[in-house]
Amino acid sequence: MDIEGFRKAGYAAVDRICDYYASLAERPVSAQVQPGFLSASIPTSAPEIGEAWERIDNDYHSVIMPGITHWQHPNFYGYFPCNASFEGALADLYCASISNPGFNWSVSPSVTELEILMVDWVGRMLGLDEAFLSTSGTGGGIILGSASEVALTVAIAARERCIDRLTPQHPMPTVHNGMNGVGSLDADQDVASAGQSAAEVGADATLVANTRLAKWRGGLPSRLVMYGTTQTHTIAAKAALILGLDFRALPVSAESSYSLSGATLAAAIAEDVALGRVPFMLIATIGTTSSGAIDNLPEIVEVVAKHPTLWLHIDAAYAGVCLSLPELRAEMHLDAINSAAVDSFSTNLHKWGLVQFDCSPLHVRDRGDLSRALSITPTYLRTKQADAGNVLDLRNLQISLGRRFRSLKVWFVLRSYGLEGFRKHLRTTMQLANHFESLLRADDPGLLEIVAQPRWALVVFRMKPKGEGCDVEQLNKAFWDDLEAQSAHFVLTQTSLPEVGFCIRFVVGSPQTQRHHVEQTWKLVAQTARSTWARFKSSSSS
Amino acid sequence: MDIEGFRKAGYAAVDRICDYYASLAERPVSAQVQPGFLSASIPTSAPEIGEAWERIDNDYHSVIMPGITHWQHPNFYGYFPCNASFEGALADLYCASISNPGFNWSVSPSVTELEILMVDWVGRMLGLDEAFLSTSGTGGGIILGSASEVALTVAIAARERCIDRLTPQHPMPTVHNGMNGVGSLDADQDVASAGQSAAEVGADATLVANTRLAKWRGGLPSRLVMYGTTQTHTIAAKAALILGLDFRALPVSAESSYSLSGATLAAAIAEDVALGRVPFMLIATIGTTSSGAIDNLPEIVEVVAKHPTLWLHIDAAYAGVCLSLPELRAEMHLDAINSAAVDSFSTNLHKWGLVQFDCSPLHVRDRGDLSRALSITPTYLRTKQADAGNVLDLRNLQISLGRRFRSLKVWFVLRSYGLEGFRKHLRTTMQLANHFESLLRADDPGLLEIVAQPRWALVVFRMKPKGEGCDVEQLNKAFWDDLEAQSAHFVLTQTSLPEVGFCIRFVVGSPQTQRHHVEQTWKLVAQTARSTWARFKSSSSS
Repeated sequence: MDIEGFRKAGYAAVDRICDYYASLAERPVSAQVQPGFLSASIPTSAPEIGEAWERIDNDYHSVIMPGITHWQHPNFYGYFPCNASFEGALADLYCASISNPGFNWSVSPSVTELEILMVDWVGRMLGLDEAFLSTSGTGGGIILGSASEVALTVAIAARERCIDRLTPQHPMPTVHNGMNGVGSLDADQDVASAGQSAAEVGADATLVANTRLAKWRGGLPSRLVMYGTTQTHTIAAKAALILGLDFRALPVSAESSYSLSGATLAAAIAEDVALGRVPFMLIATIGTTSSGAIDNLPEIVEVVAKHPTLWLHIDAAYAGVCLSLPELRAEMHLDAINSAAVDSFSTNLHKWGLVQFDCSPLHVRDRGDLSRALSITPTYLRTKQADAGNVLDLRNLQISLGRRFRSLKVWFVLRSYGLEGFRKHLRTTMQLANHFESLLRADDPGLLEIVAQPRWALVVFRMKPKGEGCDVEQLNKAFWDDLEAQSAHFVLTQTSLPEVGFCIRFVVGSPQTQRHHVEQTWKLVAQTARSTWARFKSSSSS
Repeated sequence: MDIEGFRKAGYAAVDRICDYYASLAERPVSAQVQPGFLSASIPTSAPEIGEAWERIDNDYHSVIMPGITHWQHPNFYGYFPCNASFEGALADLYCASISNPGFNWSVSPSVTELEILMVDWVGRMLGLDEAFLSTSGTGGGIILGSASEVALTVAIAARERCIDRLTPQHPMPTVHNGMNGVGSLDADQDVASAGQSAAEVGADATLVANTRLAKWRGGLPSRLVMYGTTQTHTIAAKAALILGLDFRALPVSAESSYSLSGATLAAAIAEDVALGRVPFMLIATIGTTSSGAIDNLPEIVEVVAKHPTLWLHIDAAYAGVCLSLPELRAEMHLDAINSAAVDSFSTNLHKWGLVQFDCSPLHVRDRGDLSRALSITPTYLRTKQADAGNVLDLRNLQISLGRRFRSLKVWFVLRSYGLEGFRKHLRTTMQLANHFESLLRADDPGLLEIVAQPRWALVVFRMKPKGEGCDVEQLNKAFWDDLEAQSAHFVLTQTSLPEVGFCIRFVVGSPQTQRHHVEQTWKLVAQTARSTWARFKSSSSS
């Protein structure tokens, strides 16, 4: 495709996207296809000769689109939202036109510098303390691809920091690793300084690279424990699984709204320490997936402050954007988030923050904790600017080398919406969720109940017919089957809560959703509850 | 921005991108800015009130663009290419318009199904054996974001498989982890089957989740060793660093073109086993970064076949796309790649494969090796289709939960170019690199020499004036400084090779590069060599 071909194809794609959004509400929310549907339409190999663009473009709309579940649909209330904005789409288009792997400052200075500035914009918007911003000199952060990547990245840094603090007699070595000719593990700083990277390599070059592992030999890693609660997202357990470390899910109760208390944490630490384990990280959550629970951060930070080997990460993947709303900051424990005991914080702008997937800003109190754990600099990645210590190479704060230019979409969205528009989006969404909650609470036959305090735009409910004895768990599984059968009309998500059991989540998040969409979905949910109950009652009594 | 606003802004962005490509050759290749340049143009906080799109769009071109190093520029010969195509840009635009996190089949069936089909298309294009395709039933793969992510993901699977094979008396447990109500680590299969995920949770739910760690307690992980060579990309050492495992860089020599031999590998294994270490993974490379070296796969697979705990991964991040060229398959050891000893293979389509960053297809012989190491399924991620065992949820083959719709750009590019066009792009590029090589070899004053056998589109050279005694290392560092000072005109990369030392890489890769661009750059390089030498000689003699 040449330049004029792209102009034509680009205009056409823009028109198609306009048509898509104009017709979105009329489309089935969830793809109505069967597993394996696509293989009937797509040959088993790439074509030998290139095809005309019009044909390919048409196939996208006729072949791919029927298998797309429309997360931007006004009646998509599943999981957490995955916002799209036109501004974000334009940013992704521009990024694709200047595709580059952005690993070092010099390979595209704007990619690095805009990211540092945008992480600061997000931090200020959320009310994070100066310590979490790049302007503090030590803090700041990076934009990663997902909360999972954040959890793993932070866990690596937490592990290394814990081991360093417990084994000060074995400081982190600068490893002359013999790889790629001249190279070093620039582990002690996030900007390599001249000379230090220039270790010469012996001719045999067969040494084992990770000499830092020597200090692990005492078996310390096998004693490390990561904490979360039974409500923490599985990103925590998965990070522990990947690193081969223990994850301990601390108990929370319905009575305390599934919030981790300081007492529970303190008891777990005492118990583990007595058993010779080393608690190295706690992932506390502001807004759990199943119920929107908020861990008791004011209590937690007091406990963590007494345990310097424990890294405290705040996972606010869904709800964190609401720290931009002054009226919610107290409830969301902003003061505790900003206390010195908190090492890192992350929210996903790609959920409810109007920025396309993927975009997970991570704020850390000490950027050096990341770079000490993650920096490796072979000769072919050295640059004049990094050698001079003048720049930050973001690859040293993350797992991968290459990285996308994610900050552009943040810049586009926050400028186009302004803080005012960003906050309005969140408040409007919450009002819609409140409306759903009110309709549910006011429902006459009393078939439904709300099972956890609704927060932000999340309402968790289940069937529990008033004054009727029945197997509530089975009833709700039947209810879920009946709701899921209507996925062309709306999408919800199943979950399960301690002391409650099976229940159903409703989350508003799409900027497309309006009051009438919520009312229309509520009507279908209420009708379904009636029909499920009628069927369930008759089959139970028969 | 509303729909009509997007139509206008979208057309304008397409026009701007057309202008960009039309003017690309006139732009400075590398950004001519100083560290910190961007903070002067961007306020410290997001605006309170939204701004007009025209202003934002203009700022992208006037503020961001000067800080972009143009990897698509015809005179970009640095690192490895990071191709962009118009087709890929259109795919990214479409993906952004239907933003979704694609973690399960059901959350967008097309995202999962097209990816499985495209991984097969790529595998067939490269001549990979049926065992690496989804149609084999056990093989197939996934598209990840980078070769780093591939190396880490594969290392996790290799670690788990090694431990399982060494401790058959402790089979991998299905862990009822007490997280998020009802959940399980569906570790034994990549499709959860009904019933198995429905483990009930005890009321205390305080158990340590990773009971699989019990079998690690014998200290096995501290004995694991990953192999590469001194020329293996640092993705290997970084994966080992992240997992806290040893990486051993095996020696290679200039005489054998930096290729790992079977004898070197066998000797290392014997040595490590005698010391009680457990070799669990080898990353062999087809096309190293510094010199394009090819490890001796025919020898390596024979050694690996005798060591069932050793996972053999082929990193062909740069060169792998050239397996699409029948004339290069023998030299690239396709037969050995397809032998049973090879567990996984990966190339980056986002380097030389016309697909925008990021796009790293990973082919594995047994998908179950990934899912056994990486699956965790809480209730809120369960689906009817997965419970029924009918679908593959790609989150179970990767580190993160969410994932981008990367296969769309593969589909667009391979259909629009066809295999013929894809191959033509590679062959044309290699001819241009050959032309640079010929010009260099024919250079009259004999100031330059090629230091490693040129392969694909990579030429590695340095200054070594014929018949002149001098400090070659210092001369080349001075040469590099002089070359780098011309980064507005062309971009190269420094590296270092064993027995050679400091040298310079020239890689063609942009579809924009034509013969006259290469000749123009060659002239500047040749002139620079003359002026560096004149200055160096006079300062040495003074």
